[in-house]
Amino acid sequence: MSAPHRKLGLAVAQMGPVNLADDRGSVVKRLIEMLREAHGRSADFVVFPELALTTFFPRYWMSMQEAEERYFEAAMPNSAVQPLFDEARKLGVGFYLGYAELTPDGQRFNTSILVDKSASIIGKYRKIHLPGHDDHKPDAPFQHLEKKYFDVGNETFGVWNVQDVKMGMCLCNDRRWPETWRVMALQSAEVVVLGYNTPSQNIHWPEPVHLRMHHHLIALQASAYQNCVWAAAAAKCGYEDGHHMIGGSVIVAPTGEIVAQASTEDDEVISFNADLALAEAFRKNVFDFARHRRPEHYQLIVDRVGPGEPLKR
Amino acid sequence: MSAPHRKLGLAVAQMGPVNLADDRGSVVKRLIEMLREAHGRSADFVVFPELALTTFFPRYWMSMQEAEERYFEAAMPNSAVQPLFDEARKLGVGFYLGYAELTPDGQRFNTSILVDKSASIIGKYRKIHLPGHDDHKPDAPFQHLEKKYFDVGNETFGVWNVQDVKMGMCLCNDRRWPETWRVMALQSAEVVVLGYNTPSQNIHWPEPVHLRMHHHLIALQASAYQNCVWAAAAAKCGYEDGHHMIGGSVIVAPTGEIVAQASTEDDEVISFNADLALAEAFRKNVFDFARHRRPEHYQLIVDRVGPGEPLKR
Repeated sequence: MSAPHRKLGLAVAQMGPVNLADDRGSVVKRLIEMLREAHGRSADFVVFPELALTTFFPRYWMSMQEAEERYFEAAMPNSAVQPLFDEARKLGVGFYLGYAELTPDGQRFNTSILVDKSASIIGKYRKIHLPGHDDHKPDAPFQHLEKKYFDVGNETFGVWNVQDVKMGMCLCNDRRWPETWRVMALQSAEVVVLGYNTPSQNIHWPEPVHLRMHHHLIALQASAYQNCVWAAAAAKCGYEDGHHMIGGSVIVAPTGEIVAQASTEDDEVISFNADLALAEAFRKNVFDFARHRRPEHYQLIVDRVGPGEPLKR
Repeated sequence: MSAPHRKLGLAVAQMGPVNLADDRGSVVKRLIEMLREAHGRSADFVVFPELALTTFFPRYWMSMQEAEERYFEAAMPNSAVQPLFDEARKLGVGFYLGYAELTPDGQRFNTSILVDKSASIIGKYRKIHLPGHDDHKPDAPFQHLEKKYFDVGNETFGVWNVQDVKMGMCLCNDRRWPETWRVMALQSAEVVVLGYNTPSQNIHWPEPVHLRMHHHLIALQASAYQNCVWAAAAAKCGYEDGHHMIGGSVIVAPTGEIVAQASTEDDEVISFNADLALAEAFRKNVFDFARHRRPEHYQLIVDRVGPGEPLKR
């Protein structure tokens, strides 16, 4: 990979449902199978979903002790996940993986890692934009308890050098927030990878179901364009024990165009040979940040949390 | 208009070309005709384009004196534009209008105004994200000299109370920058209006022409969704003395869906009865900023202008 046409073989491994009855061993087998398929299509890097090792457990109300015992990882890799790391090293393929992280001092995070082709963990991200609620809503069809089970990520968005590519990462709901992407673009990200679990039903109000896919796609397309990055997003989707989540895993070019999109709600690999030079034309012209951005007019973005009164003029 | 279903009759008056030979009188007649059509469709407010009164003159290299004399307005309203203000007062319709502003102390801005239904100017915005260049490019098919003819706006993005609706505004290239929208949303904007002149040919690199429309639409759709606002965007479009600009004037709902889109590259009014309550479901849930935003992780947005090294971790 030499300038000006460095390319990254980028794959997204979408997952169909992981049910309550599925153990980590069976899940890791599925991940390994998709890793091999991606490698067979010349992928250098594979994006797996958020909380890839278990069902999307924030939909269930339970004690913290039960959650920690059933769904959190106290070490990464651990014996259940080690075969995935071994296979990645053998094939020489890097990957992104989401899981529930329990730290030695008892903190719990919705976490993702970047693993390079020698199977070393070179980056870790802890989800910042936790959606949902922390209280039990017995009348809701299911819960969305990310604010109960997880602490807010204690480090900001990062960018790492993965196989000579500057790669940022985030998780699920983060993708809806333009700040997420901008903070990575300002660290020179070329590729942003993420996993998600997005219920098709909104438990808070009767949002038309088709909007969930629409919002996922327009947020990714606009953010890839506005930040001159390739974006790759991996869903866990379909019916997990009867609870439906959207698919729509995609690879989006810096043009904002979808260049690959999953067509199922099952385990499915999509891939694209991403030309990293494509973003340069945008970065040097319409989005030459150094020439065009005006941070002196952006102060409200950090000075306010919620909306307030119009500024005096 | 009383809660919870306040509605705004919102119209966009797209303009076909204004050629070099067209004087302001003929342009204002076209604006008045569209104002009447919008009023006939129960519009309360009409959005006109950027630099609506003249051809898109930043495509031409000329002396500053010539530019000021031919294309800038030293007063607003002035005798040429007064008939539009008179008609607006008569019909009781507010409007947004873009024009080139020459201040008494000789500053030049790419400016827009909000005019209420009594024809009073209640808000003024001076374009912050000026695209293009300030030098003569004799080999280019045309120029994009906004950085020559205009000073950078000296006030930040604002929000004004127009007919009991909190309205923000920006101009053209501003719409591509997520900071633009966020700064208005943090001032409780419910509607964002803007005008644009977007050449279909990129003079800086051979960008595929179809992308210009694509980028316009995904930026508007994602930004309306991410900021819980109605967005209304008015093009000046078609061939101005042989130079083509895109149409695609739209009204976008806070769902990120296009609810009205112009189908020509000529003078054309589109309209929609916008339910301002629609955004509340988003504002109270997925985009409850006060509950979900994490400005402590956004600092780079104001600390850096251009991209730099990844943060140390």
